[in-house]
Amino acid sequence: MAQAIPVSPLKVDLPPLPPLKGVRLGVAAAGLRYQGRPDVMMMEFAPGTTVAGVFTSNKCPGAPVDWCRTALKGEAARALVVNAGNANVFTGRAGVVACEATAAAAAALAGCKPSEVFLASTGVIGQVMPHEKLAAALPALHAELKETGWADAARGIMTTDTFPKACARTATIHGTKVTIIGIAKGSGMVAPDMATMLSFVATDAGIPAAALQSLLRKGVEASFNRTTVDSDTSTSDTVLLFATGQAGHDRVSALPGTALDDFQEQLNALLLDLALQVVRDGEGAQKLVKVTVKGALSDSSAKRIAMAIANSPLVKTAIAGEDANWGRIVMAVGKAGEPADRDKLSVAVGGVWMARDGGVVEGYDEAPVVAHMKGREIDIEVDIGLGKGEATVWTCDLTHGYIDINGSYRS
Amino acid sequence: MAQAIPVSPLKVDLPPLPPLKGVRLGVAAAGLRYQGRPDVMMMEFAPGTTVAGVFTSNKCPGAPVDWCRTALKGEAARALVVNAGNANVFTGRAGVVACEATAAAAAALAGCKPSEVFLASTGVIGQVMPHEKLAAALPALHAELKETGWADAARGIMTTDTFPKACARTATIHGTKVTIIGIAKGSGMVAPDMATMLSFVATDAGIPAAALQSLLRKGVEASFNRTTVDSDTSTSDTVLLFATGQAGHDRVSALPGTALDDFQEQLNALLLDLALQVVRDGEGAQKLVKVTVKGALSDSSAKRIAMAIANSPLVKTAIAGEDANWGRIVMAVGKAGEPADRDKLSVAVGGVWMARDGGVVEGYDEAPVVAHMKGREIDIEVDIGLGKGEATVWTCDLTHGYIDINGSYRS
Repeated sequence: MAQAIPVSPLKVDLPPLPPLKGVRLGVAAAGLRYQGRPDVMMMEFAPGTTVAGVFTSNKCPGAPVDWCRTALKGEAARALVVNAGNANVFTGRAGVVACEATAAAAAALAGCKPSEVFLASTGVIGQVMPHEKLAAALPALHAELKETGWADAARGIMTTDTFPKACARTATIHGTKVTIIGIAKGSGMVAPDMATMLSFVATDAGIPAAALQSLLRKGVEASFNRTTVDSDTSTSDTVLLFATGQAGHDRVSALPGTALDDFQEQLNALLLDLALQVVRDGEGAQKLVKVTVKGALSDSSAKRIAMAIANSPLVKTAIAGEDANWGRIVMAVGKAGEPADRDKLSVAVGGVWMARDGGVVEGYDEAPVVAHMKGREIDIEVDIGLGKGEATVWTCDLTHGYIDINGSYRS
Repeated sequence: MAQAIPVSPLKVDLPPLPPLKGVRLGVAAAGLRYQGRPDVMMMEFAPGTTVAGVFTSNKCPGAPVDWCRTALKGEAARALVVNAGNANVFTGRAGVVACEATAAAAAALAGCKPSEVFLASTGVIGQVMPHEKLAAALPALHAELKETGWADAARGIMTTDTFPKACARTATIHGTKVTIIGIAKGSGMVAPDMATMLSFVATDAGIPAAALQSLLRKGVEASFNRTTVDSDTSTSDTVLLFATGQAGHDRVSALPGTALDDFQEQLNALLLDLALQVVRDGEGAQKLVKVTVKGALSDSSAKRIAMAIANSPLVKTAIAGEDANWGRIVMAVGKAGEPADRDKLSVAVGGVWMARDGGVVEGYDEAPVVAHMKGREIDIEVDIGLGKGEATVWTCDLTHGYIDINGSYRS
């Protein structure tokens, strides 16, 4: 399929992943596309589990995204089935049939309704999913589900990922400790071939679906929606959050309140951790890049400017070349289409302000900038000089590795 | 500065460039940045020459762009001075001073007002322009201006370009033949370092400035604004059109009329020819890619979808890998944010419809597609299936050469 891809130098190791009450999970090899490795992951949730989801904004989503959007209306989840190797995208009626068959097979095993089964697929587009193979693998997989399967699950959903991605945090609700565990895969913001971003998070907290949806939407906005690898948007990007309610804390209201403040904070931190792991595994990435824009007219304007910088091929290739090319950053600010005044603009790299108020800072100390550019984590700051709007986004550099991974002929 | 860049395999040869009445031009080596090659180009126009201009949409334009926008209000041009090696961008007050000094020096030689002198600069950003060197080179340059200097001029404005770009056409106005000659430089849609897109066109037609501006705006919309190399937008992009009025045809009105229909058609063809030469010299380009979208809800919607395809790094790397990856094309349609229905979408590569009405065409003939992908000119067609909107845009593939050119450390 693809040549062996070297492990990202920005890799982080899997953290300890403890059992989470109300979730049993595992993986199996169904031979959908890959041979000799797990390619199906299943989770089963305790009765009473609520669910929230955020999906791709792509107008041509895969059939599993449509399935999950509909299933979310039931606010209840009992199972999740994820496969790697076939995206079940652009497969017409056959895609819908594959979803129905997979959900029915999982529901029979979990003893629930098909609408309580959630689905995600990642892999090649436009090939009909061999869903019979998938269904055939489920009974043995279901029989082996266990609470300690998180690390295997993180590995089982990988495609072009060069390392598995997971994060665990604890939070406090009404004085009771709850756990949150999440796994993710993705190594371009997307490559519809292989590198869709998927993330599955579970908690033993008990949170009504409406509140859970609000928590997840805010968390994704502050994490996955602040990262970009190549500006492309998968047809399958999916983040699902399941709450099993097994932690035994006092009841929380479906309405917004302070009881979930710590949970929101820890969830945001977990989602940002996972999102940055995806960027660290960005196709060909050699450097993790943080772009902070301040002084814009609004936070949303600052975010659009920051994303224009983070998506600029010229900025990203300069970083790959370890060149603190602030001229390209100025160009990217200008192309964002947001309010900006050339003569009020300032740019810093690695904390050193190289350009200030529309011109180069004469005699700035270049040595620390050169040293910073040789590192793995690059820090860009831009002050627009017009207002109080701020935003931070993350990306990676654009290297020969990206061309290698995405320009190789599918065999 | 940069390593030697191989000449683009998509290169076209300079066409014959005859003299054009009312324009004398030439080049000189001012040593602004490059050594041992011309880096200043000057044109002098006959009295009565009108002018039109279209500039970058970047919000942080260079000082010469500001200068030209102001000078255009006078509707008259007597000279053009262009330098390569220093963009005079993000240089604060010093940038304005450099423009004033250069225009004054050229005006003294041409015997005109400084506001009748047009300026363009391309090269590195943020370095103060050594305008004294430029002014010092002008008297000898001016003394050598001649009507046959077009090919030298095309070479003198190159930066990272690997071949010079020019085009000549004739048109008929009121029964009289007029000539149009244009030159261009650019080899990314932009790299603010080195590869801004500049184009200078002259005609011996006599056309009032208001009509000339309308002709140019329509021509640029149908050509340069339909091409992209890397989605980045230079701080200096400039297209200027000068009309010397020396062809001796009957007077044309400043109001729109049919007298200029043939001129518009030939101007559009010339500008598209130049724009495609720029794409053919796209940094690292190995293939010229034409993207046609039909069946969108409007022409502007079709153009946005076509540009989303043309700018997608995943589509462009697939083409570099000679992979007719229609899944990535579907992804790019979906991310454009325009109305699209996955189940009505069709995709053709090299004239072969691989996907139709939301699914792969079972048993389509892959052999001609594979052969097409190995060629230099790639043809992608998408039918959205919703309406009558159409648009065609052009781009190039994304290769290791792009990373080489843009990721090398500036020395």
